[in-house]
Amino acid sequence: FPPKAKHDPRSAVFADLTREEYTQVQDYMRKGLGVSTDALTEPSQDFLFLIELSLPKKASALSYLDAGGPPPTREATAVVFHGTRGHIKEYVVGPLPDPTYHRDVTEERYGTQLHINARTVTVGEYHLLFKMLDEQVFAKLGALMKDSFDVDVDQKDERRRRRLNAFEQMPRGRKSGDRSTWISYFRDVSGMYIHPVGFEVLVNHASVNASDWRVERLLYNGRYFESVDELKAKYAAGDVSKIVYKETPDYGSLKPRSGPLQVAPQQYYAEGKRFSVGGNHVLYLDWSFAFGLSSLTGMRVFDVRFGGRRIAYELSVQEAMSVYGAVSPGLALTKFLDSSIGVGRFAHELTRGVDCPYDATYVTTHRYIDVAAPTRFANSICVFEHNVGQPLRRHFADFFGNSYGGMVNSALVFRTITAIGNYDYLWDFVFYQNGAVEAKVHATGYMSTSYVLPGNEKYGHQVADKVLGNIHTHFVSFKVDLDVMGVKNVFQTKDMKYVNVSMPWAPDHHAMVPQLVEKELKTEQEAALRYGTKTPRYLHIASNQLNRWGNKRSYRIQVITFAGDPLPESEPEERSMSWSRYKVAITKHKDKEQTSSSLYSQNNIWSPAVDFSQYIEDNESIEEEDLVAWVTAGFLHIPHSEDVPNTVTVGNGGGVILRPHNYFDEDPSVNSPDAVYIKPG
Amino acid sequence: FPPKAKHDPRSAVFADLTREEYTQVQDYMRKGLGVSTDALTEPSQDFLFLIELSLPKKASALSYLDAGGPPPTREATAVVFHGTRGHIKEYVVGPLPDPTYHRDVTEERYGTQLHINARTVTVGEYHLLFKMLDEQVFAKLGALMKDSFDVDVDQKDERRRRRLNAFEQMPRGRKSGDRSTWISYFRDVSGMYIHPVGFEVLVNHASVNASDWRVERLLYNGRYFESVDELKAKYAAGDVSKIVYKETPDYGSLKPRSGPLQVAPQQYYAEGKRFSVGGNHVLYLDWSFAFGLSSLTGMRVFDVRFGGRRIAYELSVQEAMSVYGAVSPGLALTKFLDSSIGVGRFAHELTRGVDCPYDATYVTTHRYIDVAAPTRFANSICVFEHNVGQPLRRHFADFFGNSYGGMVNSALVFRTITAIGNYDYLWDFVFYQNGAVEAKVHATGYMSTSYVLPGNEKYGHQVADKVLGNIHTHFVSFKVDLDVMGVKNVFQTKDMKYVNVSMPWAPDHHAMVPQLVEKELKTEQEAALRYGTKTPRYLHIASNQLNRWGNKRSYRIQVITFAGDPLPESEPEERSMSWSRYKVAITKHKDKEQTSSSLYSQNNIWSPAVDFSQYIEDNESIEEEDLVAWVTAGFLHIPHSEDVPNTVTVGNGGGVILRPHNYFDEDPSVNSPDAVYIKPG
Ligand SMILES: [Ca+2]
Ligand SMILES: [Ca+2]
Ligand SMILES: [Ca+2]
Ligand SMILES: [Ca+2]
Ligand SMILES: [Cu+2]
Ligand SMILES: [Cu+2]
Repeated sequence: FPPKAKHDPRSAVFADLTREEYTQVQDYMRKGLGVSTDALTEPSQDFLFLIELSLPKKASALSYLDAGGPPPTREATAVVFHGTRGHIKEYVVGPLPDPTYHRDVTEERYGTQLHINARTVTVGEYHLLFKMLDEQVFAKLGALMKDSFDVDVDQKDERRRRRLNAFEQMPRGRKSGDRSTWISYFRDVSGMYIHPVGFEVLVNHASVNASDWRVERLLYNGRYFESVDELKAKYAAGDVSKIVYKETPDYGSLKPRSGPLQVAPQQYYAEGKRFSVGGNHVLYLDWSFAFGLSSLTGMRVFDVRFGGRRIAYELSVQEAMSVYGAVSPGLALTKFLDSSIGVGRFAHELTRGVDCPYDATYVTTHRYIDVAAPTRFANSICVFEHNVGQPLRRHFADFFGNSYGGMVNSALVFRTITAIGNYDYLWDFVFYQNGAVEAKVHATGYMSTSYVLPGNEKYGHQVADKVLGNIHTHFVSFKVDLDVMGVKNVFQTKDMKYVNVSMPWAPDHHAMVPQLVEKELKTEQEAALRYGTKTPRYLHIASNQLNRWGNKRSYRIQVITFAGDPLPESEPEERSMSWSRYKVAITKHKDKEQTSSSLYSQNNIWSPAVDFSQYIEDNESIEEEDLVAWVTAGFLHIPHSEDVPNTVTVGNGGGVILRPHNYFDEDPSVNSPDAVYIKPG
Repeated sequence: FPPKAKHDPRSAVFADLTREEYTQVQDYMRKGLGVSTDALTEPSQDFLFLIELSLPKKASALSYLDAGGPPPTREATAVVFHGTRGHIKEYVVGPLPDPTYHRDVTEERYGTQLHINARTVTVGEYHLLFKMLDEQVFAKLGALMKDSFDVDVDQKDERRRRRLNAFEQMPRGRKSGDRSTWISYFRDVSGMYIHPVGFEVLVNHASVNASDWRVERLLYNGRYFESVDELKAKYAAGDVSKIVYKETPDYGSLKPRSGPLQVAPQQYYAEGKRFSVGGNHVLYLDWSFAFGLSSLTGMRVFDVRFGGRRIAYELSVQEAMSVYGAVSPGLALTKFLDSSIGVGRFAHELTRGVDCPYDATYVTTHRYIDVAAPTRFANSICVFEHNVGQPLRRHFADFFGNSYGGMVNSALVFRTITAIGNYDYLWDFVFYQNGAVEAKVHATGYMSTSYVLPGNEKYGHQVADKVLGNIHTHFVSFKVDLDVMGVKNVFQTKDMKYVNVSMPWAPDHHAMVPQLVEKELKTEQEAALRYGTKTPRYLHIASNQLNRWGNKRSYRIQVITFAGDPLPESEPEERSMSWSRYKVAITKHKDKEQTSSSLYSQNNIWSPAVDFSQYIEDNESIEEEDLVAWVTAGFLHIPHSEDVPNTVTVGNGGGVILRPHNYFDEDPSVNSPDAVYIKPG
């Protein structure tokens, strides 16, 4: 197995760096540029934050894959936080595996320099921040900490010291250059995210020198204080309404409360797997694709083929974003942009039998992000064939003859799950035997919560004692670079309308009859389909090449979404999430427009390195061009008691189905070996 | 097994009639009313068309189930087509199993008499129709039939005679009382529905006397003829552009084209089934419910309980409707209302391993509709537990501690598949361990097509040689009678809005922050949420009883739909499908308002026995009342080449998820035996 095709070693052009390659780039950067690779590098130093594959230009890759051209030079992107110089640089380092050059591509990629405060908070910075908070906040508030939170700040034995855990608000301030973070505190118990204690601290850490950092404000039990000293003094004077510590039940625990019953139904491959994972290449019946897992954006597949013909050049996760509402500062302004922390970074080991079936194929990945050495993530991708539990198609005939034909819907699932702090996102690409591919996300894990305060009923529902589940949106961005019969495509829409027509056999008889309405949208701005507007029901990336029946061959983009409202464009933070305006937006492909978001969006949200809306600002023609569809799906989350302990995946997701529509001359699943036919003897 | 509960014999109040009960009612009707039960009863006679369970009044059922009241009297509904009197009657016959009385309930149920022409076309009527067409059309057009369709009308041996197969247009005319049907002809091959030949005939069969029936018009190769004689004469004179018979490939066949490979993944119950089907009662972990399968409306469940507490009194399929567009009369005005033919009627035997997993539990049902004796449908319902292929919930923690908790999403599926002529609808009710229930439908089978004619590009896409796949809508109606903490409920909506607020810790800082918007809609008309309008994102049937955290206990109604536009209300046919105006409509429960559609809607579409919009016309209060939610889901179908041979289920469906929202104090799946927890040693 598999019988129909062989693994394509050329898929290596899309492969993530190996452990050795990371090490080679790390060595090169350390020696060549003198940057630190210590995990606790301080913000004032130069730190090698990230090493990732630098994707080949599409033209080079296609030349290699399709036209016998040379393999594109294998290169890495290295991101350095130059604390000594106050800026961030992206370098391309190559050629791998033995780098001999590096090139500053910051300006080329982003058209701007990147201020140092646009950087992700590193382990090194967290180390200093928590130290500062320990010294300047906790150590000074011993009595309050003991009375309110049962935290003994004088306990020297760290293992025995009860503590509070921190969870940060983002963005960190109000304008470009700001780096002031509200930190909310939670009990140090399972599922801390749903155990807020009512204590929040605003820290200004804008300087790269930790000695400049200061506490700017505190919130205790709904009241604000200018300084630790003010809180301490007023608390001591009895001038503060106190939070009195009370044991709370362990409602955030995921420990089973009942013993196992019979095991749930299991899936097995009675005659072995019908798919194969070789390197970063997957074969499954008529399907093949290459894959990778970006530390930043998450999972992605390339060169997706059905029956040997490329359908998509790239299908990838781009961003996961949430906007929260609250009265308390910890969530009032929060807008999380996960790819700035790293979506793929948190693709941890998957649990057999829960996250994926026991006998899935598990793939180990390596990453280099905010570490001292490449990290190995065992079994962090799973691939399995799944019985969807429905027929893919079937018909039972009993009029004019009696027969049955059908086939089960058995599809290949490619999955990672990324636990980014509180939330766990389940990312699936599903490959169906009818030539459809689905990209979808489901959310689970812990929601973000805040301590119950007056006025907060407007922002959610209480879900536990003193705990508010805060209203928020989930928006997810997918990049869908379909190539339908080559890269020259058009964007078609189809829908219905009722038209009053007279019946040919009875011209006096008029009736409203549904008609097909087809359009071709010819520019990027026409094809930017906003949320909140009526969009045509069928969206197609089409070729001007016709199928056997004279229709444009196309793939339809069917979005499944329950999204809330995107942030109003009036807000200065909106530019960093301008992709979320559009349910679907079509752009002319550019290598420079690789992602809808960026590593630098979260911490310079007001003046982001990538503002997706600029991709369509030039309003290029999308007629007979290489088109990319940027799809936004999501859901509005109004938390409720059943989000405790975890949000469930049922009903909490969104995604997009890419479906052949006049692409083939008939349904390709007619050729499936799973087809069944029954006729009475 | 099952450990938590016992089957409840009281669920028998919702059980369909047994074979014996059908026979007893049939006997009673035959002897008592002298109606015919012959399968070929002619329209001019009195025919016992249908016997079904007459559902108990809700108050009686609840009194029995909840308050130790007596069991409601078991009764049947019997539908008689009184050809001798020109009307249809519904009788209630009881008590079962030994009927002693019958009562005409037509006026009580529908507030009107039912004209005989509102009846479903019976096997008896078809028999006469086809005979008439054979004699008056085919026998006279021998030459045309031979040349154009290779049909030899003179072949006396029926088994050797090639024929054309008929597919009818509905409604049958333009106004109440009409019964004129366009019949389109198709080749007699597998999947005839996608082999139209270009020949259509309009037959007036309004009289109950077949001798009065006449051909009113014919369509041949795009041209209309007033009579068979006219067509015959002009054809003979060479005055007609001829269709010349050509063999066509067998593209509608579902026969496998390749041999089996390895088998697809299978599911098995390693430690046995965790659910049990006893009579018409199902137990599954915390769930229990009663079920039935109406010949008319299809599958339904009653007294749905989680943890012993009733969540829904009834969840049922009501109607499947499609509106087509075409230039040719066979589909130009077509509006199918399947429950008038019988949705559940066509719930045939399910194929193990394709329609449902091999080791599902299969249930045999009996029906009495348009037959001479009760019919047995072996294995026509399946019940199985399914590994959805995702975790239901999970969290991986690596900040501040390291642990993993999660559980697989293993859910119970209750399924029938109804093959109503060309289409096969897959109906699923899914019971999840978090207390959610999903009702969904997927469409597969053959689409309806028409012969390619000038101007028909407006109505679809060509999908095979001379074959147009015609644009159409799919709308499906579900009845959702949730009872949240009893029958006294309110209808709540929740959504988000951005509000410009000043930050308490920095009052000069204003920002748009999402807030929760809650409303209670208090009348039926307010709560009739139309397609094409902006509806609140969260819809809740709520109790004024609060959960532990002070919030109204509720179930949320989350609709998943890709519906096209409902038929404009200006059309006279719209009244029969007025339920499809509303994505969700809430009514005050009435036993008289049992269904959103009726058996008599298709054939008196202009003046239907049930016009759903009348349920809300009186605009009753829905505050603290027993509420029923009527949910419409569906999808717009723009046919494409991949609909040949069959439409696939992927992306072609819709439904509704009923989810607890502040109903419990926490997610009940915390108690699942499937929960898994891992902590490093
Ligand atoms: Ca552009
Ligand atoms: Ca493209
Ligand atoms: Ca009413
Ligand atoms: Ca109710
Ligand atoms: Cu959420
Ligand atoms: Cu359809």
